[in-house]
Amino acid sequence: MLRRVSSQAAKDSMPPGSLVHVGAEGAGPIRITVLEYDAQGVHILEEPDPGEMSRLKDEPQVVWFRVEGVHQVEVIARLGEIFGLHPLVQEDIVNTHQRPKLEEYDHYLFMVLKDLSFDPEEQEVVSRQVSVILGRGWVLSFTEGGRDPFAAVAGRINGGRGRIRHLGSDYLAYALLDSVVDHYFGVLEGLAESTQTLEDELDTAADQKVLQTLHKLKRQGLRLRKAVWPLREVAGWLERGEHEFIDHGVRPYLRDVYDHTVQVIDATESLRDSLASLMDLYLSVVSNRMNQIMKVLTIIATLFIPLTFVAGLYGMNFKYMPELEWKWAYFAVLGLMGAVTVGMLYYFWRKRWLGPGS
Amino acid sequence: MLRRVSSQAAKDSMPPGSLVHVGAEGAGPIRITVLEYDAQGVHILEEPDPGEMSRLKDEPQVVWFRVEGVHQVEVIARLGEIFGLHPLVQEDIVNTHQRPKLEEYDHYLFMVLKDLSFDPEEQEVVSRQVSVILGRGWVLSFTEGGRDPFAAVAGRINGGRGRIRHLGSDYLAYALLDSVVDHYFGVLEGLAESTQTLEDELDTAADQKVLQTLHKLKRQGLRLRKAVWPLREVAGWLERGEHEFIDHGVRPYLRDVYDHTVQVIDATESLRDSLASLMDLYLSVVSNRMNQIMKVLTIIATLFIPLTFVAGLYGMNFKYMPELEWKWAYFAVLGLMGAVTVGMLYYFWRKRWLGPGS
Amino acid sequence: MLRRVSSQAAKDSMPPGSLVHVGAEGAGPIRITVLEYDAQGVHILEEPDPGEMSRLKDEPQVVWFRVEGVHQVEVIARLGEIFGLHPLVQEDIVNTHQRPKLEEYDHYLFMVLKDLSFDPEEQEVVSRQVSVILGRGWVLSFTEGGRDPFAAVAGRINGGRGRIRHLGSDYLAYALLDSVVDHYFGVLEGLAESTQTLEDELDTAADQKVLQTLHKLKRQGLRLRKAVWPLREVAGWLERGEHEFIDHGVRPYLRDVYDHTVQVIDATESLRDSLASLMDLYLSVVSNRMNQIMKVLTIIATLFIPLTFVAGLYGMNFKYMPELEWKWAYFAVLGLMGAVTVGMLYYFWRKRWLGPGS
Amino acid sequence: MLRRVSSQAAKDSMPPGSLVHVGAEGAGPIRITVLEYDAQGVHILEEPDPGEMSRLKDEPQVVWFRVEGVHQVEVIARLGEIFGLHPLVQEDIVNTHQRPKLEEYDHYLFMVLKDLSFDPEEQEVVSRQVSVILGRGWVLSFTEGGRDPFAAVAGRINGGRGRIRHLGSDYLAYALLDSVVDHYFGVLEGLAESTQTLEDELDTAADQKVLQTLHKLKRQGLRLRKAVWPLREVAGWLERGEHEFIDHGVRPYLRDVYDHTVQVIDATESLRDSLASLMDLYLSVVSNRMNQIMKVLTIIATLFIPLTFVAGLYGMNFKYMPELEWKWAYFAVLGLMGAVTVGMLYYFWRKRWLGPGS
Amino acid sequence: MLRRVSSQAAKDSMPPGSLVHVGAEGAGPIRITVLEYDAQGVHILEEPDPGEMSRLKDEPQVVWFRVEGVHQVEVIARLGEIFGLHPLVQEDIVNTHQRPKLEEYDHYLFMVLKDLSFDPEEQEVVSRQVSVILGRGWVLSFTEGGRDPFAAVAGRINGGRGRIRHLGSDYLAYALLDSVVDHYFGVLEGLAESTQTLEDELDTAADQKVLQTLHKLKRQGLRLRKAVWPLREVAGWLERGEHEFIDHGVRPYLRDVYDHTVQVIDATESLRDSLASLMDLYLSVVSNRMNQIMKVLTIIATLFIPLTFVAGLYGMNFKYMPELEWKWAYFAVLGLMGAVTVGMLYYFWRKRWLGPGS
Repeated sequence: MLRRVSSQAAKDSMPPGSLVHVGAEGAGPIRITVLEYDAQGVHILEEPDPGEMSRLKDEPQVVWFRVEGVHQVEVIARLGEIFGLHPLVQEDIVNTHQRPKLEEYDHYLFMVLKDLSFDPEEQEVVSRQVSVILGRGWVLSFTEGGRDPFAAVAGRINGGRGRIRHLGSDYLAYALLDSVVDHYFGVLEGLAESTQTLEDELDTAADQKVLQTLHKLKRQGLRLRKAVWPLREVAGWLERGEHEFIDHGVRPYLRDVYDHTVQVIDATESLRDSLASLMDLYLSVVSNRMNQIMKVLTIIATLFIPLTFVAGLYGMNFKYMPELEWKWAYFAVLGLMGAVTVGMLYYFWRKRWLGPGS
Repeated sequence: MLRRVSSQAAKDSMPPGSLVHVGAEGAGPIRITVLEYDAQGVHILEEPDPGEMSRLKDEPQVVWFRVEGVHQVEVIARLGEIFGLHPLVQEDIVNTHQRPKLEEYDHYLFMVLKDLSFDPEEQEVVSRQVSVILGRGWVLSFTEGGRDPFAAVAGRINGGRGRIRHLGSDYLAYALLDSVVDHYFGVLEGLAESTQTLEDELDTAADQKVLQTLHKLKRQGLRLRKAVWPLREVAGWLERGEHEFIDHGVRPYLRDVYDHTVQVIDATESLRDSLASLMDLYLSVVSNRMNQIMKVLTIIATLFIPLTFVAGLYGMNFKYMPELEWKWAYFAVLGLMGAVTVGMLYYFWRKRWLGPGS
Repeated sequence: MLRRVSSQAAKDSMPPGSLVHVGAEGAGPIRITVLEYDAQGVHILEEPDPGEMSRLKDEPQVVWFRVEGVHQVEVIARLGEIFGLHPLVQEDIVNTHQRPKLEEYDHYLFMVLKDLSFDPEEQEVVSRQVSVILGRGWVLSFTEGGRDPFAAVAGRINGGRGRIRHLGSDYLAYALLDSVVDHYFGVLEGLAESTQTLEDELDTAADQKVLQTLHKLKRQGLRLRKAVWPLREVAGWLERGEHEFIDHGVRPYLRDVYDHTVQVIDATESLRDSLASLMDLYLSVVSNRMNQIMKVLTIIATLFIPLTFVAGLYGMNFKYMPELEWKWAYFAVLGLMGAVTVGMLYYFWRKRWLGPGS
Repeated sequence: MLRRVSSQAAKDSMPPGSLVHVGAEGAGPIRITVLEYDAQGVHILEEPDPGEMSRLKDEPQVVWFRVEGVHQVEVIARLGEIFGLHPLVQEDIVNTHQRPKLEEYDHYLFMVLKDLSFDPEEQEVVSRQVSVILGRGWVLSFTEGGRDPFAAVAGRINGGRGRIRHLGSDYLAYALLDSVVDHYFGVLEGLAESTQTLEDELDTAADQKVLQTLHKLKRQGLRLRKAVWPLREVAGWLERGEHEFIDHGVRPYLRDVYDHTVQVIDATESLRDSLASLMDLYLSVVSNRMNQIMKVLTIIATLFIPLTFVAGLYGMNFKYMPELEWKWAYFAVLGLMGAVTVGMLYYFWRKRWLGPGS
Repeated sequence: MLRRVSSQAAKDSMPPGSLVHVGAEGAGPIRITVLEYDAQGVHILEEPDPGEMSRLKDEPQVVWFRVEGVHQVEVIARLGEIFGLHPLVQEDIVNTHQRPKLEEYDHYLFMVLKDLSFDPEEQEVVSRQVSVILGRGWVLSFTEGGRDPFAAVAGRINGGRGRIRHLGSDYLAYALLDSVVDHYFGVLEGLAESTQTLEDELDTAADQKVLQTLHKLKRQGLRLRKAVWPLREVAGWLERGEHEFIDHGVRPYLRDVYDHTVQVIDATESLRDSLASLMDLYLSVVSNRMNQIMKVLTIIATLFIPLTFVAGLYGMNFKYMPELEWKWAYFAVLGLMGAVTVGMLYYFWRKRWLGPGS
């Protein structure tokens, strides 16, 4: 989060609407693919030229312009011109530190989403920004490079599976939103597994490293939470909103995606509860071990301190100490010492200071 | 909760509305029973064929289609066709990880509820999903296998007890909702008993196991809470909402069920307070025992350390130590030691370090 | 609170609206008294028969039907018939585990209140359910047996004190509500006194018993809070609501009772703050005593450990230890020991480890 | 706060609207002063008789009736008659335990405010109730005896300073409210100074007394908070409300007083943060001192325990102990002891257990 | 924050609307610059006289009156006359302890903002008050002396960069608001860096100084938070509000600035989470070190106490102690001591009390 701020701060003195890529460096050129489809079939066009794109977006079929990579601002600017995007929309697309949001413009709806994945090596939630623009009959999507979050949707269109080919661009936009939300369940699963692993480790070793992992997982949970709370507003708006681009028949699906975001929020809160519980457990394990150490010290010290005193007593060099002369005195003292020890052990046992559990 | 996520994640790449059973494995085939009743009498039909069901749902009497088991997706799909259920409704019925909710469709209302029971062996709240669909003149209910949450309602219809035979399908839907909420009181009772048992155990043994049970009960309380909070919204919507299927006369009953959910929420919060209080008590018992141990150590050590020093003093081997030659020196030293001990005990007693309570 | 749940759970399998008394056992029969009054005078009627009651409720004067005891469900059912009460209202009257609430029915308003008193012996808040039904020109009140919460109101009517005889049944209902809220101040006073007593005890004895009393008082505060928060909604509804039974002139009084509930809430929150403060103080007293013990241990041990070492040193039996032969060696060693002791005491004093306060 | 409750409880059985003075005893008779003014000049009238007051309140000039003292209920009752005040308003004026509030009546607005001052001796916030009634063209103000909170406003009217003589009774009511809010800044300053003093003391002496002062200041902060939160509602209502008595031109001033209450709330919350921070610091200082004590104990004990063992070893009286006979054995042992000590000090130093900071 | 209060308190007895400068002393005279611009060009006028200003504000071009310094109340009063500012607006301009706010007056909008910067030396957030007044066709801005927060905006106007020369006074007001919000990212970056530095220091030295820096950073975070939360309301009002001075085309920009304030709030909350996490870590490091010290004490003491006892035992001077006479007794005892030591070390090792991590 704080990293976001620092790259943002670098843009400080520029006029608003300046196109500057803020985010991870992209490799290679931006890739543009166009999918034009209806119930009959699908046409795929790679790297179209601007004229084609202008023409395609007015076709009667559903047209999906997929843009992969946002690190070349001049490409984004050219697309902005073709689709008539507001300068601030263009700025939000290239600046990958937005919060999820939905903005209504005259000729299109603009959504910013966060596609999350969980890296089990680093135990980190990785976030990639996704922008989706829904126009009349077309959808324009921008993804950062790397993992393609929309591969499954493209596969369904190509394969003709599900309802997607029979429905309009509003359903396509829904499908993209839905696939992003679906990935959150994978992230939750990853976090839950890491939490489980940590819980198992806690029994054997409650050291500082566990605490640090705990804090790290907590931060990841927060990251997930920050992506999904604003998303809930987006989905809620879509569900309620009576926008002209969104057909009545698509609304149950939008309600469904809203339900899923609420489920993710619920599960995230559960995860936070589990982590807080683990924290309590960690502290309790640490303090329990400390108590054990203290108890051992007390028992050892308390057993031997009186004995040592007695030994010291008869180590004194007074001339006249009648006991020293007695024949069985030594053995009597040994016996006394044994009796004191047994008495104390009995006292400790009655106080429940001995035994494994307590 | 986290378990829910992982089975959900498995559905990740499927198109929305796919019928996949997510939940506990069911045994045996799905069982369908139809109860057709009015004030005059009741007809019961086991395992009806599709045609019969289509015909029955348009009868003037109240018809209750009870489906037990949701693990055979093809059966659910066939029912979905007969009753004209939206694909997402079918998906929610077979995916048993929904939050309680109410959705309004054109020809029916769709409710998802959580039937809870308390397993005193495992000290766990067991959750089973219940779906209730209210149409004009009919109710369609789905329960997971195992315990039948609606047995009492069916019994009342068969026996003609209460008002149920004199009222419509809206009252039946209310009765099903009410029976689910009533079970929550049993769950609360179970949790309260376990909490009481734990409180009694705390006096005798405040070990790690108590802490773990405490955390477990806390989790169960959360589970109950998560079932009942959304239910409150459902009941509140029903109470306020002026839906055409819900008669004015049924509204006091719906207000009553709303009051019950609020009572359950109140009692759940009380339970959480009790558990938090127990946690405080546990920590206080543990720290109290620690303090006792420390006190014993201090008293023993403080009593003997000076005495041991005196003994060591007269154990020195200096040639010229006049006291060593004196006749009563040994007894004088013993007396001095006794005086020091008594003095210290008096100091401790005045400081209230001795005595059982403190 | 949890007790409520368990008796509720016993009703589990009954149809809604079943009349079962849930609450403390009542002794003797239910007592019914009717007060019919206007500015001119008061008629009192004990144990009226049903016909009389039916006639009385349509009289032009204000008629107050006082029912003491709710443990005989058949009496309540008969009254329900006479006054045309909804089955759920009858159920709520006999089930004394309701939350305070106000329900609007066609011909009457139904209020459930909690009359609280403080038992200084047990240091417990005792709760008795009160139901008030306001019809056109009449009020029907139900109280559990035992203490009569409405004695003062009845006294004012009989004595003709205050405005009550000059105003309608809405003012009577207000007066009953007001007398219930007034009792809360007595409960607060009792709790405040117990808190004060506890605070005084803390100085002399901070043991486990104090902690338990603290937890108990906290629970009583919660109980008060649970009675008064919903009451605030009731009073707020009455103040704002433009109900036909409630005259414009009574509204300042209802606003006044609303203000009183807010005052009670404020004082309850203050009480909770005081108790939380006491808890802090308790923990600080306990930890302070622990620190004192540790300090004494440290000072004693630190003073004597070096001295004991020196003594041990000259207790060694080496053949060739020149100091042992010196004439003044013993006194030199004693002097050294004294110097070490003084030096250490000075060090402790400079570190502020000595002295009463720290 | 709890004191309020107990005096309130004494009124328990009286009919609502009873005039009983609840609050501090007042000394001497109630003092009434009337200021009649407009842009031209001011007339002051001391102790007017009822007839004069009736006449004055209908004068075209602004008339301010100042009543100092509320302990003589018969005077308040007479004023209530002259100005047509509702019995509950009269009750609220003499019962000085109200929350700040604003009530709208047919012919006047009734405000209850809390004038606070800070007593640096006792470190306590002193609260005095102020009631202001705004009618058409007149203002009636009641203050408890003692400090006069409205002296500055009266001075401005007499001196003709500021806008007050040019504006109506609504501005006068605003000026009274404003002067009350202005005093809160003085209270905050007093509390802030006490907090600062406490912070400075913390470095030198972190004892129980500091903790108690901390708790006391916390309570004072709560008291301020309780006066100002409801006041914010009052000011907010005045700012928004379109009341006939309040001129459009006065609204910016009311917005200003609203801003001031928000500033006071902000500063109160800051104060609470500072006190919570101080609490953390106190606990950290206490635990730090404890750790220092433990460290000294450890270092002393750890240094001497092995040495004492070695000394004890060669204090044994075995017949055959070859070392005892060696010539340089004693010095070798002394050397060994020195080496062990140096080794241990090095170990502690490397572990950073020595040195002032840690 | 508390400093604010004390200077405020000094104004206590003055009539509202008094012009008194409350804030840091300004140096030198107030500087006024006028920028008059449109798409064609820019005219700059330094230190205009009142007549010129009156004329300029009615020009068709956009006119920006920049006032640097607010410490000379007579200058502000003269400007207030020229622009017809309400006395309370003038008071808010010179009293630099306002909360950020927006007030709507008949002929202008009045905004108070807080320009923040981070001083890395003192690790403090420095706050300077900025007032912006938006009239029809003109903007009047007031800044405290020192750093000029609007230098970049002035530069863009002079250089003709961005859209600013092509748009109206509403866009100029937006640009000023935007530049203030942009500075918050710099402050966040500074705080984040200090937090990072502190985290790195924690590993090497967890002393009281770290705790104090932690508390200081927390306070700075609070200060930022207090500036930005009310700002969010301001931005939200501007985004939604349909004010006549604000053109439809400027609203996406206002939405953008609203998004930025939400981002700042998010990042501030993250910072607070990080600091709370650091606090946890600090406490854990401190308690871990304490535990290490305790462990060393326990191990040393536990190892040597029994050995010392054995040594003391054979240091007794009894006449008849047969072991003393045995030839190999001394070596047997040494062997026994070795065995006990090894046994204990093994026990500690099995209990995981040895080793670096635990």
